[in-house]
Amino acid sequence: MTALDYYRRTRRFCYDVLHNTDYDTPASRYFNYLLIIMIIANVSAVLVESVDHVYQAHAFYFDRFEHISIAVFTIEYLLRLWSVVEEDLETPAWKQRSHWLLSGAAIVDFVAIFPAYLNFFVHMDLSYLRILRLLRLLKLTRYFVSLQILLNVIEREKGSFQAVIFILIIMIVLAAGGVYAFEHEAQPDVFGSIPQAMWWAVVTLTTVGYGDVTPVTNAGKILGSVIMVLGVGLAALPAGILATGLANELNVRKERLEQEFRELIIGKDLDLVNDEKEIQQIGRIVGLRKEQIHEIQMQLIREQILEEKEQELKHYKYCPHCGEKLHD
Amino acid sequence: MTALDYYRRTRRFCYDVLHNTDYDTPASRYFNYLLIIMIIANVSAVLVESVDHVYQAHAFYFDRFEHISIAVFTIEYLLRLWSVVEEDLETPAWKQRSHWLLSGAAIVDFVAIFPAYLNFFVHMDLSYLRILRLLRLLKLTRYFVSLQILLNVIEREKGSFQAVIFILIIMIVLAAGGVYAFEHEAQPDVFGSIPQAMWWAVVTLTTVGYGDVTPVTNAGKILGSVIMVLGVGLAALPAGILATGLANELNVRKERLEQEFRELIIGKDLDLVNDEKEIQQIGRIVGLRKEQIHEIQMQLIREQILEEKEQELKHYKYCPHCGEKLHD
Amino acid sequence: MTALDYYRRTRRFCYDVLHNTDYDTPASRYFNYLLIIMIIANVSAVLVESVDHVYQAHAFYFDRFEHISIAVFTIEYLLRLWSVVEEDLETPAWKQRSHWLLSGAAIVDFVAIFPAYLNFFVHMDLSYLRILRLLRLLKLTRYFVSLQILLNVIEREKGSFQAVIFILIIMIVLAAGGVYAFEHEAQPDVFGSIPQAMWWAVVTLTTVGYGDVTPVTNAGKILGSVIMVLGVGLAALPAGILATGLANELNVRKERLEQEFRELIIGKDLDLVNDEKEIQQIGRIVGLRKEQIHEIQMQLIREQILEEKEQELKHYKYCPHCGEKLHD
Amino acid sequence: MTALDYYRRTRRFCYDVLHNTDYDTPASRYFNYLLIIMIIANVSAVLVESVDHVYQAHAFYFDRFEHISIAVFTIEYLLRLWSVVEEDLETPAWKQRSHWLLSGAAIVDFVAIFPAYLNFFVHMDLSYLRILRLLRLLKLTRYFVSLQILLNVIEREKGSFQAVIFILIIMIVLAAGGVYAFEHEAQPDVFGSIPQAMWWAVVTLTTVGYGDVTPVTNAGKILGSVIMVLGVGLAALPAGILATGLANELNVRKERLEQEFRELIIGKDLDLVNDEKEIQQIGRIVGLRKEQIHEIQMQLIREQILEEKEQELKHYKYCPHCGEKLHD
Repeated sequence: MTALDYYRRTRRFCYDVLHNTDYDTPASRYFNYLLIIMIIANVSAVLVESVDHVYQAHAFYFDRFEHISIAVFTIEYLLRLWSVVEEDLETPAWKQRSHWLLSGAAIVDFVAIFPAYLNFFVHMDLSYLRILRLLRLLKLTRYFVSLQILLNVIEREKGSFQAVIFILIIMIVLAAGGVYAFEHEAQPDVFGSIPQAMWWAVVTLTTVGYGDVTPVTNAGKILGSVIMVLGVGLAALPAGILATGLANELNVRKERLEQEFRELIIGKDLDLVNDEKEIQQIGRIVGLRKEQIHEIQMQLIREQILEEKEQELKHYKYCPHCGEKLHD
Repeated sequence: MTALDYYRRTRRFCYDVLHNTDYDTPASRYFNYLLIIMIIANVSAVLVESVDHVYQAHAFYFDRFEHISIAVFTIEYLLRLWSVVEEDLETPAWKQRSHWLLSGAAIVDFVAIFPAYLNFFVHMDLSYLRILRLLRLLKLTRYFVSLQILLNVIEREKGSFQAVIFILIIMIVLAAGGVYAFEHEAQPDVFGSIPQAMWWAVVTLTTVGYGDVTPVTNAGKILGSVIMVLGVGLAALPAGILATGLANELNVRKERLEQEFRELIIGKDLDLVNDEKEIQQIGRIVGLRKEQIHEIQMQLIREQILEEKEQELKHYKYCPHCGEKLHD
Repeated sequence: MTALDYYRRTRRFCYDVLHNTDYDTPASRYFNYLLIIMIIANVSAVLVESVDHVYQAHAFYFDRFEHISIAVFTIEYLLRLWSVVEEDLETPAWKQRSHWLLSGAAIVDFVAIFPAYLNFFVHMDLSYLRILRLLRLLKLTRYFVSLQILLNVIEREKGSFQAVIFILIIMIVLAAGGVYAFEHEAQPDVFGSIPQAMWWAVVTLTTVGYGDVTPVTNAGKILGSVIMVLGVGLAALPAGILATGLANELNVRKERLEQEFRELIIGKDLDLVNDEKEIQQIGRIVGLRKEQIHEIQMQLIREQILEEKEQELKHYKYCPHCGEKLHD
Repeated sequence: MTALDYYRRTRRFCYDVLHNTDYDTPASRYFNYLLIIMIIANVSAVLVESVDHVYQAHAFYFDRFEHISIAVFTIEYLLRLWSVVEEDLETPAWKQRSHWLLSGAAIVDFVAIFPAYLNFFVHMDLSYLRILRLLRLLKLTRYFVSLQILLNVIEREKGSFQAVIFILIIMIVLAAGGVYAFEHEAQPDVFGSIPQAMWWAVVTLTTVGYGDVTPVTNAGKILGSVIMVLGVGLAALPAGILATGLANELNVRKERLEQEFRELIIGKDLDLVNDEKEIQQIGRIVGLRKEQIHEIQMQLIREQILEEKEQELKHYKYCPHCGEKLHD
């Protein structure tokens, strides 16, 4: 085996472990678990570090852990960039790499390491650096299917979300203007300008309602009441849109799974009544629940019986309508 | 009748009363009512006891009631464990019992009595013991169908819930990090660290909004506004998912009921037009509303008429199309 | 015409005006408008009266208006009771009257006048009397279809609501118990007992979040956060159930309207293409929107064309399959 | 070309740019972008102006910008009014113009300029004038399709909204009455009258929960708890209705798009398998996503195959059932 072969095989291995979701060996699984633990440990470290006295007591360990993390995530990033070429060996490497660099997952990976390097050149305030390190949490999205489904739905329904957020902004601006007109004399310190009044409007229209700023004049209270009654539901609208979209998405997925399961059973030529155990197993591999498997099995049996009846009819020698001979 | 027979019959009786939902006699019903009242009385006692001066005035009665309750719930637990064997006399008893011990209902029953016994050995703080006694409330789930439906839906949609709670946690962590960066200098006592800032993030993103902690800097308020507008809907998402899931579940149940009703009517060979009264009665037993019964009846009548027409066609001796003889 | 005839006709007239929704003359309409104005004026009077100095300044007029209102509502109640008999002249009068007395609308009417009479015998506190007078607002439900639809949906989905409220109560009790355990030492004045802590639990789980009572210990804040993240969505669940139920109900109603419209067009034997204007008019009477009318019209035209083609086929003299003669 | 021709062509051009959504040239697009920027700049100016010291420092520029804006919006309004005639050259001009004047978009345009002119005659308070200028924000609705969809849904579901707001008002009045009865002695300053108590009721039932006014008596807290548990979901109901309505509306639109796409493909007589690229392009123009295009393409191919089979059957010279000749 030549050096090139080794190079190729290593790259292939990296690709399988880091990119290929169909590749599922104990090694790749443990590696991914390790990365997940690393991410969670990182975020936990940032949270704990922000407690001043804890950080001062153990600064050395925290810094060391941060350096190791940057190293690990940098290597991960470079390996992903290097191995992505294996996805399609016919496209030129630079094209695939630049394509990957601009994908959402790659940007998240980049954001996870970039601020640490930037910090060498431009000294950032520690508290801002911490938030940027918290963004490493987004690397977790890669490992959770249900999260990707949710993001998909958000992506698909983004038109509706834009409309809702746009209306919400219009309402916030108008509500702020209204309450400013009625309250800025009574409470010049908190309703002194419309941008200041927008804080009240946001807090009210999202139903958070801290109570740090509330209207005190009668006119302000009446306007506030109207705004609440009419506008309050709007803040809950994105949830409603998401819920409906999610239900649709999950339905589509379920149907696809069932279709896959059907084709597997028919393809393997299993006996629907006697091969109960194998059917159950296939169903579980595909990812169906017990009841779903049973239901599809029953339906397939019904279809089989119907088909058999039809077959019988086809064996008639004479047309049941006009009595002529059908086959010779 | 031998002693073994008595033993068996007693066990069967216990099984019927405690486990068998199809067994419905006045005795079993009253017994279940008694248990429900016992549970509610227990929880009420815990609530009232926690008012110090009430407990001190009547400590004797409260303690006695607690002792009786423990005795009753312990006996109930042991009888359930003993009699569950009757469910399937062919499986070995230990297998069924250990299976039952690990079921959700059994764990709830165990949690209801265990802390009281543990208290003999390890002395627990009274206020913690009280919460554990409050968990007896969960024993009520056994008696309410609609509650079980809701729990079913939660179980089925748990993938979506995980995704939502996971996103919520990501948003809480990032929001806490952001507000910490902007506010920890202005308000070091409440935004002194990211974990401290998470209290604000949770209170805000769930739209509870106590107002005990609010951003005061302009940057903090702007960040807070963005978080509210974008993230607030998320907290209402589980409700949306549950509502959609519940609607589906109830639809499925309704269809099953209607199917059952149909089969009962056809099975009993009732005359669809004249046996109005009996049909109504069957429908009510099955659990349908009046309109549903009427609708199904109408549909069955339509189907009958269609079938009769088809039957008529089958009795044609000659094909109405070509005039040839159909049967000999 | 005898006295009995007059009596009967008066009763019929009262029935038509007060009970019969199909009876729609200017007189009945104005009478109902009058009652609606009366109800709104009553509620407004109660609201204004509760401002002490306003009431003291105009007590005479307020009291007089109240006396007139009681008289009007009492007469209305008695006339309804008297005339309900006309609904079905074959059932005995006392049966219909007692049936009506127990209906929801009659109870609302009764509650609107009863406290005023009770006040003659037992002197009630003025502020409680005022709330009871506010209940006259419920008399408005009779006049709004969309309100009745909403109440219908609530009635139909009451099983789900019970489940949700039941779970909410369980969560409130457990949350109160938990926060009591962690906070009752730090804040004995507001978390001094579990019932006291329930105020916090309700305010939190419904996401109202006044902030008058909040956990201050770390353990309390962590427990509070978990309760918020897990439980907060539940409070919005009834809204989700209602929204889904309302959508279904409105769909059913729309389909019924469309069916009615279809039958009217077919029944009147209108030409689908040329009688555009009459079709539009019928549609508007039935209560459809312009687009709906157009859509149904288009569908009917398509159906007509299909039927015509089928008719053509029926006129074939020979079977297109075997060439035999079809009719003589 | 005569003067009239010039006049006509100018009017046509104005109509195309200002009213005709099918007319899409770079010129018209830039013009619309300019108007959008103008609107946003205007609203931003109002927001910034309301900060007193900023306005005092740059009053001259703010006032000048306002004058220019009024001029631009006035000219836009007049040009729209003038050119709307081109929509349908057969209807008399005054009819179309008065029809347009009463349309929602025209009223929004009018509200955007009217207060500025009114201010010449009646001097308005600056803070009220500012809110009225904020209403210019509504002019944006013209440019966002998703916003119009949302408004459509609100228009269509207005019956449900009325019912919900009506119930909400009933609940607010009753809740205010109840809490007034229990709390007006303990807190006469905030629960001194029912209208005063309504502020608490609105803040509570919409789940905003400022906490500026909360019940302090036990009776008040119990009543408040019941109101929260029962009524809180109602405030989220409009969101649920909107979400369901929006989902339906978007489905209808999607189906319409797909239908349009289908007809375009069939109309252009494209080869479904080989003209992949053109099909993709048409799909994108129509506004479909890639997966949707693929799905429709697959379905069309299936339909084509089925049709071909049927065609084959039609070419049979003898009935496969009875062997008789089918056509001559």
